[in-house]
Amino acid sequence: MQIIKKVLSAERNSSLTIYLNAENNEFGEPRPRPFILIIPGGGYGDWSETEAEPAALAYMAAGYQAGILRYTLKDDGGWPHPLEDYEKAMDIVMRGADEWLIDRDHVAVAGFSAGGHLAACAATFAEHKPNAAVLVYPSIVQAECDTCQPGMPAPHEYVDGNTAPCFILAARDDVAVSLANALTMASDLERAGVRFEMHIGSFGSHGFSTTIRNISGEVCPRLTDWVRDSIEWLGEIMGFLTIEGFTKPLFPRYLPADNDEYLSLECSLARVCEQGGEAEELLAPLWELMEKDAEYRAFSFAGWKLALEGYTLRRVMEISRLPKKDMVEIGKKLSRIPNIRKG
Amino acid sequence: MQIIKKVLSAERNSSLTIYLNAENNEFGEPRPRPFILIIPGGGYGDWSETEAEPAALAYMAAGYQAGILRYTLKDDGGWPHPLEDYEKAMDIVMRGADEWLIDRDHVAVAGFSAGGHLAACAATFAEHKPNAAVLVYPSIVQAECDTCQPGMPAPHEYVDGNTAPCFILAARDDVAVSLANALTMASDLERAGVRFEMHIGSFGSHGFSTTIRNISGEVCPRLTDWVRDSIEWLGEIMGFLTIEGFTKPLFPRYLPADNDEYLSLECSLARVCEQGGEAEELLAPLWELMEKDAEYRAFSFAGWKLALEGYTLRRVMEISRLPKKDMVEIGKKLSRIPNIRKG
Amino acid sequence: MQIIKKVLSAERNSSLTIYLNAENNEFGEPRPRPFILIIPGGGYGDWSETEAEPAALAYMAAGYQAGILRYTLKDDGGWPHPLEDYEKAMDIVMRGADEWLIDRDHVAVAGFSAGGHLAACAATFAEHKPNAAVLVYPSIVQAECDTCQPGMPAPHEYVDGNTAPCFILAARDDVAVSLANALTMASDLERAGVRFEMHIGSFGSHGFSTTIRNISGEVCPRLTDWVRDSIEWLGEIMGFLTIEGFTKPLFPRYLPADNDEYLSLECSLARVCEQGGEAEELLAPLWELMEKDAEYRAFSFAGWKLALEGYTLRRVMEISRLPKKDMVEIGKKLSRIPNIRKG
Amino acid sequence: MQIIKKVLSAERNSSLTIYLNAENNEFGEPRPRPFILIIPGGGYGDWSETEAEPAALAYMAAGYQAGILRYTLKDDGGWPHPLEDYEKAMDIVMRGADEWLIDRDHVAVAGFSAGGHLAACAATFAEHKPNAAVLVYPSIVQAECDTCQPGMPAPHEYVDGNTAPCFILAARDDVAVSLANALTMASDLERAGVRFEMHIGSFGSHGFSTTIRNISGEVCPRLTDWVRDSIEWLGEIMGFLTIEGFTKPLFPRYLPADNDEYLSLECSLARVCEQGGEAEELLAPLWELMEKDAEYRAFSFAGWKLALEGYTLRRVMEISRLPKKDMVEIGKKLSRIPNIRKG
Repeated sequence: MQIIKKVLSAERNSSLTIYLNAENNEFGEPRPRPFILIIPGGGYGDWSETEAEPAALAYMAAGYQAGILRYTLKDDGGWPHPLEDYEKAMDIVMRGADEWLIDRDHVAVAGFSAGGHLAACAATFAEHKPNAAVLVYPSIVQAECDTCQPGMPAPHEYVDGNTAPCFILAARDDVAVSLANALTMASDLERAGVRFEMHIGSFGSHGFSTTIRNISGEVCPRLTDWVRDSIEWLGEIMGFLTIEGFTKPLFPRYLPADNDEYLSLECSLARVCEQGGEAEELLAPLWELMEKDAEYRAFSFAGWKLALEGYTLRRVMEISRLPKKDMVEIGKKLSRIPNIRKG
Repeated sequence: MQIIKKVLSAERNSSLTIYLNAENNEFGEPRPRPFILIIPGGGYGDWSETEAEPAALAYMAAGYQAGILRYTLKDDGGWPHPLEDYEKAMDIVMRGADEWLIDRDHVAVAGFSAGGHLAACAATFAEHKPNAAVLVYPSIVQAECDTCQPGMPAPHEYVDGNTAPCFILAARDDVAVSLANALTMASDLERAGVRFEMHIGSFGSHGFSTTIRNISGEVCPRLTDWVRDSIEWLGEIMGFLTIEGFTKPLFPRYLPADNDEYLSLECSLARVCEQGGEAEELLAPLWELMEKDAEYRAFSFAGWKLALEGYTLRRVMEISRLPKKDMVEIGKKLSRIPNIRKG
Repeated sequence: MQIIKKVLSAERNSSLTIYLNAENNEFGEPRPRPFILIIPGGGYGDWSETEAEPAALAYMAAGYQAGILRYTLKDDGGWPHPLEDYEKAMDIVMRGADEWLIDRDHVAVAGFSAGGHLAACAATFAEHKPNAAVLVYPSIVQAECDTCQPGMPAPHEYVDGNTAPCFILAARDDVAVSLANALTMASDLERAGVRFEMHIGSFGSHGFSTTIRNISGEVCPRLTDWVRDSIEWLGEIMGFLTIEGFTKPLFPRYLPADNDEYLSLECSLARVCEQGGEAEELLAPLWELMEKDAEYRAFSFAGWKLALEGYTLRRVMEISRLPKKDMVEIGKKLSRIPNIRKG
Repeated sequence: MQIIKKVLSAERNSSLTIYLNAENNEFGEPRPRPFILIIPGGGYGDWSETEAEPAALAYMAAGYQAGILRYTLKDDGGWPHPLEDYEKAMDIVMRGADEWLIDRDHVAVAGFSAGGHLAACAATFAEHKPNAAVLVYPSIVQAECDTCQPGMPAPHEYVDGNTAPCFILAARDDVAVSLANALTMASDLERAGVRFEMHIGSFGSHGFSTTIRNISGEVCPRLTDWVRDSIEWLGEIMGFLTIEGFTKPLFPRYLPADNDEYLSLECSLARVCEQGGEAEELLAPLWELMEKDAEYRAFSFAGWKLALEGYTLRRVMEISRLPKKDMVEIGKKLSRIPNIRKG
């Protein structure tokens, strides 16, 4: 193993520590690995070391290259320096990726508490947007942010269709960072159609870190495997590294196809409806099924369309049980129709 | 095994089907078992059979006696008859408990979709309140209820400190019953200090039922064990039945002690603060620690008190790291102070 | 749910009880389901009811149709009547399969203790051989059988390449049926190249049944999920029932191809070697790789061939890293060579 | 994290690499941690790096201090140097324990393949006997050892009541190190009454290492969590490190009490029977229950005694359902009887 420390700002005492696996033949040949940046908590007044190296080791054990971001603390300047530290750290990682066997397309962040705030900022509006974010009892809402450093942005307000997928973990009885933070983030992610997974324990309080080590008191048993759960989830979202390279993500990615030059089944329903004309006509058989579907589900057709507009056309067709051959047929024809942004 | 069908209303075609384990020596002697009432979904227009017997069997396999509630459907009269059916069914269960080896203090409900709405009504304002409720992709908010049967109550509006603990399950991409339903219920449970656990998958859609059987398409792997998870959770909340009888619940119960004749460490902080006078003075050493704590957590003392008021005094003392001997001491003294409702 | 009791022998008091799932749309349409025959223990002197219905329910919860075999007890005639009861029961199941929605190619047995002895007999030499067998703290060796009913066959002595795959469970500290029973069965299955999985806990004693219910004392936590593990294993061996029907088994099936009319990559190495002539010549490139392999593994080539002869040709080629295109090529040519039994 | 490399023999190129967790407040204060020595495989001709650092990291993530033993290879001198390297490494660990925050009473080894052979030697006859051993597809029997280095000891032949508890993992289709190795070790451990746990997958072949990383082909899904399982098992055997220090082992330790000065309920049944006289008379009520028990289990009383003689008296009393108060009573009296070795 190799441990490399990079100073981000000497006077603000911020740094990035990179942990690299000793290369071996485990993936048949040396292969670029996924990378995860660990951002410990501590109310921006401190770095909780129990949320630093132990977390990095847990992901390294699963084959990740890891980094620990020790961002600028309150007394050393505070916000927005932590965000600058993050961008600078990611910049270093991206530039060093080839040398360090890091795969630039499989980069995640994992933040705890205040570090979860920074990780959520990264997932929503940072320049270096990660492919996925793990948010552990994160600070999200304005009131919470203000108890830390008045005026810090509330990341949930920046959630949109381009926000990175999130894995959220929290405990109902968290009295340090109220559950409202996790719930608000979840609610905004859902509205934007961003993939996320969330687990809330009835007990667990705050600061249980990886829980792999028996350092926490009462923690809901369904939370104690969360690191492994997050690793599974990350693999489903980003693909798993195997001896044949990365697997395909398990679940389809939404929305980005809306930016392609031509339409496809991966565009959102909303995007295709906007087009009207030929595109809309092509979907006639789908509209028919959707109307039946809406009726069955006691939705109005309009309401139903609205409920589905965040989904890929493919998924809407699946939900409406459109025959596979029609899907293929329509897909072919759509691929010839230019995708013109209306909204 | 014994299967008993009880007609609840012949003309409205509602019924309760009870499944009883063949008694054997597995618990050393015949013992009253926990009971769970399964409430299938179907938009109140139908009973989804995949959410009926398969669910009952899953809990029976864990030693439960089970019931399936086939409530009044829309076309047979609709709301509020389903709620009446529920009360009547529970009344039958309670009256038959001795004969059927059912433990009256270990009774849960599990509802799916529309059945989750009924289960949530049971957990919040029914006369026969269960000890715990499992809510699977439940309908909760007014808008959702209205798409089913306009005017049905939205159960989250009835959540208070006496609501039954809940285990909530949902998928982000549920287009039949939007995730907002689960999130709203969770948010109100949290505010009321009611114990709940929630798992939200990134994928799973609607209607995956127990998922034990591979009947659903894309379901988040962290959801596919939810029945077992709920059984663990129910045991933690209600106690597990063992050869020595029921174990003690794993986690403390909040709030009910607020109705006792004398104060105790199990009363909520709010309740004790209300008392003022001697009770408040007794807590002087706690106030001191809490102020330090509030400061450390960047809370105002007032805000901190508010954040904690839903907790038992015992838990607040633990959070504040009050020495065990002081806790015992204070507990003794409180037990002599009458608990006078102010609010 | 439907429960049907079939008397096997009135005077010997043996019976088969069949549990059928209430049919519903969970598999899209009524589909034949997998079936499992539960054989409770009790030293052939008794039927342990804790190993009967609770086990049946656990598999039903996973979509299985289930049966419980209450075989002839010692005092009612004893061996070999239990085996006759088994054959008769399976005969009834096979004849009723269409009516009862049972898939004849997905039939398993699960036996406990003495019932594990009967299940192991079924897996090795019964006429109605199941597709897979679950053996829970089974009686296997002669000495053990003799403490029950002197002269009963010791099933491990009948293990050969056609024995049904087995899932074996036992506890090291079992003082009722010594661990030697499970270990001996495992050893003979391995020699015959039969697929099996085995889990041995350090603690668990005897009679913990499904352990889903907290009826056992000290049981190794890695054993307490064994029913679910066995269901996963059964699915890997027989295929899982889904809305699209049964999936393909996860792992390749060995040996049976040795009975086909023509050779194939699914034949065992032993079978192909026997053929000599053209078949053997075809494998020249494989022999070369195998020799290198043997050397690397510090085997003699002859010893290496012996170690591998229970494997399919395909697997041997994989182990030896023969290029895929050569495999395909050789497979094609083999498919034209008649498979002549020499041994 | 701190990584310290200690040369064991320069000319034989053997070394010990120690990985120490960055100390933090996770256990309330710096506490001595459990230690695990990783011994990679490679047929004594090589060190399989995929079985070195990845394994060390997996245990570190659970709070362990870890070491990697790179023992003398065949070409550098071979056996018995690897054993000497082991003893020397353990000696270094024990002498450095205080400085490195290692708890001398919570020391385990984990060996793979040839490293499993060395780990098994450590568990059976080494001077520095670990508290527990994890054996992953280990080489055990003489034939296997001889293919590696003719004349190496076959560790199973040294198993006795003082052998360290073992966690054994193997795959049925292992063609590099046959399953007979694991089964033989298990069988001898069982006979000696040594606590062990074993998991055998139907598929997995050889060299899957931690499997946490998707580097292996077909591996039985019940094996892919084995590291976590072994960590649970180690905690049950040695106790878990928590914020309050190490927990008590979950399961009682057998046999060592046989070496105490006075008798106790923790002595083996065999030991107490040997004493005869007053000790034996004290057990009169137990003999009575054991006879009934033997009868029920179709054992002869003699055979039953034999089956139980490896167990602690306490456990035998539990099995025979002797009333707790009698146990206490007898325990008191035994504690005054000197324990005289007869055999």
